[in-house]
Amino acid sequence: MAPLVQCSKDQLLQRQKELQALYNSYKSRELRLDMSRGKPGADQLDISTDLLNAVNEATGFVTEDGVDTRNYGGLDGITEARRLFGEIMGMPAELVIVGGNSSLNMMFDYICTACVKGICGNAPWLTQGAVKFLCPAPGYDRHFAITQYFGIEMITVPMTENGPDMDRVEALVQDPAVKGMWCVPMYSNPQGVTYSDDTVRRLAALNPAAPDFRIMWDNAYCVHHLYEQEDVLLNLYREAAKLGHEDMVIQFASTSKISFPGAGVAALAASAHNLTDIRSRMTVQTIGFDKINMLRHTRIFPDMAAVKEQMKKHAAVMRPKFDIVLNTLNTELAGKGIARWHNPRGGYFVSVDLMPGTAKETIRLLKEAGVTMTPAGATYPYGVDPEDSNLRIAPSYPPLNELQVAIDLFCICAELAAVEKLLAQ
Amino acid sequence: MAPLVQCSKDQLLQRQKELQALYNSYKSRELRLDMSRGKPGADQLDISTDLLNAVNEATGFVTEDGVDTRNYGGLDGITEARRLFGEIMGMPAELVIVGGNSSLNMMFDYICTACVKGICGNAPWLTQGAVKFLCPAPGYDRHFAITQYFGIEMITVPMTENGPDMDRVEALVQDPAVKGMWCVPMYSNPQGVTYSDDTVRRLAALNPAAPDFRIMWDNAYCVHHLYEQEDVLLNLYREAAKLGHEDMVIQFASTSKISFPGAGVAALAASAHNLTDIRSRMTVQTIGFDKINMLRHTRIFPDMAAVKEQMKKHAAVMRPKFDIVLNTLNTELAGKGIARWHNPRGGYFVSVDLMPGTAKETIRLLKEAGVTMTPAGATYPYGVDPEDSNLRIAPSYPPLNELQVAIDLFCICAELAAVEKLLAQ
Repeated sequence: MAPLVQCSKDQLLQRQKELQALYNSYKSRELRLDMSRGKPGADQLDISTDLLNAVNEATGFVTEDGVDTRNYGGLDGITEARRLFGEIMGMPAELVIVGGNSSLNMMFDYICTACVKGICGNAPWLTQGAVKFLCPAPGYDRHFAITQYFGIEMITVPMTENGPDMDRVEALVQDPAVKGMWCVPMYSNPQGVTYSDDTVRRLAALNPAAPDFRIMWDNAYCVHHLYEQEDVLLNLYREAAKLGHEDMVIQFASTSKISFPGAGVAALAASAHNLTDIRSRMTVQTIGFDKINMLRHTRIFPDMAAVKEQMKKHAAVMRPKFDIVLNTLNTELAGKGIARWHNPRGGYFVSVDLMPGTAKETIRLLKEAGVTMTPAGATYPYGVDPEDSNLRIAPSYPPLNELQVAIDLFCICAELAAVEKLLAQ
Repeated sequence: MAPLVQCSKDQLLQRQKELQALYNSYKSRELRLDMSRGKPGADQLDISTDLLNAVNEATGFVTEDGVDTRNYGGLDGITEARRLFGEIMGMPAELVIVGGNSSLNMMFDYICTACVKGICGNAPWLTQGAVKFLCPAPGYDRHFAITQYFGIEMITVPMTENGPDMDRVEALVQDPAVKGMWCVPMYSNPQGVTYSDDTVRRLAALNPAAPDFRIMWDNAYCVHHLYEQEDVLLNLYREAAKLGHEDMVIQFASTSKISFPGAGVAALAASAHNLTDIRSRMTVQTIGFDKINMLRHTRIFPDMAAVKEQMKKHAAVMRPKFDIVLNTLNTELAGKGIARWHNPRGGYFVSVDLMPGTAKETIRLLKEAGVTMTPAGATYPYGVDPEDSNLRIAPSYPPLNELQVAIDLFCICAELAAVEKLLAQ
């Protein structure tokens, strides 16, 4: 297939006619498909059913060190859950705090506390004048929403195949107003990129001007491999600690996409210094999080081997969905010069860069035909993609047959938008 | 028994000798007893065991309106949980948001948001200069800790048998810097007082100078009756709504002491205007709370009748504990003029006002003999009881035999401290 930009006007008009006819035929089917969020499908939820029988009268309520999980107490979480998340995040258990059901909530609380109370004795961000945050983009819209909510200025850093553009990052952290950075370092949301060893080492070696600069290391997909050949992520905390930079790193993870998104367990890990700081808020905020749910999880996932087994089951469901998306993109869009994408080996998303100026139109066409996707721009700070190019595909929720229809239509809409754009030039 | 202040010095010296001997005999037993927190005992935790089998493959995961509780979504909580908490709090279900396992965390988040973002379009409290909060005292130490954490000046309002001193409250809210008030209106922590109808009506009728004044109505013990003759609390929201003051009220409740303190469900209820305001933060903070745990609770407690049945079981365990405390106080301290207390008909605490200047010494003596209690002063803002008089007894956690020992020793220590105080004068 020749790149569209090399087509004559007549060829484009002909192609437009074909695509429009195809589009109309889909539209007449009155589809109602949702590819908008990284929500597991029903078959994935069934994988974790055993969890719900893991704690009851027969199995007992008590942790390995004798804590009755039904009662109050235990701000750091139960011992076995701290150890499990330590394994998941590559951290010693004593540097882990296990929370409620949402790592996003833990991130929100961290940023909120930084704004109101300051980090480790530094002045509250709200009193420091303009404060900025580095946002590798495309990235996770809910990260950007947190920084925007607190009035923190977001600076877009381009993502590459190896992670954020580190030349830019190293330059930007010389500004003392730059207080931190969002990272989804493994199977990134949305591109599925895993940061290279070099990127991780350069992050660890950062010497930011701000003493309260923090890397928000959202390792949401750290065990979410889809294929046998797994990506490998260097341990940022360990690299940073080698240089005495361990206070710069706050790690987050959760079981949301290991067990149940609605009822999983989240955790953070950080240096002892940071944890003391974090606990000074937590001790006022709550008496403790849901320890029974922690115990449910550690009974089903006593160690990393159990987590890996579980993730293989998820991968068996997810892989065919990724295959459909990637194969269809390859068949329908490759060579046309109107779309680029990374072939992720894990995570929850496929991110596509369309011909600049066609992302919104593609979404509009899809929506008109009954397919909901993450809005164009959502993967950029302030919801504005300066190129109007990036779209996030979330293949997990629809069943295979619906997904095939949706992605077929996606390719038609993307090409139709590109043809119309070229014709209008 | 004659009041101690009427005793001669010789009589006091004699009594001191007796008490000291008694105290020494307890001390030699090397006790390790904890009456410090309002933690249910193990027998109470067993009451809710069925909850843990309420949601599984056999019973299903889906709410009455078809939501799969295992997956993401549903910021307000599931329909049946909103309805249940509506019944508990006397509010329509649509004015309820069901959260995680901690109502304290919801209160913290509310105050935090008021500080950072402001309430319903008003300026953030952090930008309004000195901000004050009314703290009926004795009160709940964790409430005071939240306001202190955010640098909000706490103004003590004396508690009476009918609730806070409303003359003081009405005068204080004329100050626009006064932004709110903590209330535990039913079986109050620590006194077990229920606000009178007149108190509730005067609260509803408040015309605070601050448009962003909020009553934090922590109805933690609203179904926690111990005796057949139940206290009755007027519905503040309804009274306030009659006067167009409904935005002034934010209600909180939880199942922490209905099911499991470590793994219950919490909720808030407020006017539609306030809820819109609250959701504008929540939608950034989380994707949603643990819906499976909500469903567990509504399956075991489908309605208020089921809650009432459950609370009767708790009362059957708690009542003998309260009886021990109240009977022993009556036998050992009544008539000596060194202690006053309310006889609560519900809740979790008994609060004792000792002879001024003896609360700390009583706690010290108890601690030295191996009995831990809530620290003296904890029931007052900043942990400072100006009279050094109030102590909170939490009878729920120890078994009956241990409780009897602890409260016997409490009476000995309280009287010993009073005798020593009188002798030193």
